[in-house]
Amino acid sequence: MRLLASTDFALRTLMRLAAEPDRRLTTETLAREIGVPRNHLHKVVQALAEAGLVRTTRGAGGGVTLARDPAAITLGAVVRRLERGQPLVECFRADGGACPIQPACRLAGVLAEARDAFLRRLDATRLADFAVPVALAPQG
Amino acid sequence: MRLLASTDFALRTLMRLAAEPDRRLTTETLAREIGVPRNHLHKVVQALAEAGLVRTTRGAGGGVTLARDPAAITLGAVVRRLERGQPLVECFRADGGACPIQPACRLAGVLAEARDAFLRRLDATRLADFAVPVALAPQG
Repeated sequence: MRLLASTDFALRTLMRLAAEPDRRLTTETLAREIGVPRNHLHKVVQALAEAGLVRTTRGAGGGVTLARDPAAITLGAVVRRLERGQPLVECFRADGGACPIQPACRLAGVLAEARDAFLRRLDATRLADFAVPVALAPQG
Repeated sequence: MRLLASTDFALRTLMRLAAEPDRRLTTETLAREIGVPRNHLHKVVQALAEAGLVRTTRGAGGGVTLARDPAAITLGAVVRRLERGQPLVECFRADGGACPIQPACRLAGVLAEARDAFLRRLDATRLADFAVPVALAPQG
């Protein structure tokens, strides 16, 4: 059971930004501090911006900040958004997949309940409680 | 959030076998009925045999059967076994990964709790309740 690497990277990004909500961090700084290759981080930041979770500013003094109060963002909402379109198993695909036992299958409902139990645990969180203390973030 | 395709295929295999616990099904029949390419299914059956979940018999009249009572197998046990070594995120890898914020991270514990909530739902099952009715399995 895996999350996308890009979801992992997005969670790191948000936790780091949550530590200094008023500071614009460049993607260079972010990439170094959270251990994500810069080209990956660009895509991750773009996805977070499209989700309305971060704001990006170009040019000198530009960078990335949280777009919302970290107390108002749950990890469940972040993971649901970033993992949408990731089917747990084949029959969870948007096109329904091609599993021939699907009409007789009782498993899909239980798997959906298990997935929901996973997400509910993350819904009971606030990003503010996961800020990475700046003093502990790697310097460089 | 995804399970391995091989886990999906293994669950289909077990659900089909559970419908006729006393019958040896050839991998050809199984592959056709559950919609899994034969070369994939061979590996899946091998993994299930190593896990002590199925028994294989070679030669004429040979095939695959459940190795245990389907009322004594939970989907949680199957998924835990087949997904072991699949890290939810980088820091869940056996080698600990290389995430630089790990020392300051509070997320890993919550992700582990979410994963456990997922698996607990599957622990509360018995394979016997997920047998694919033979009459509904595709014929051919």
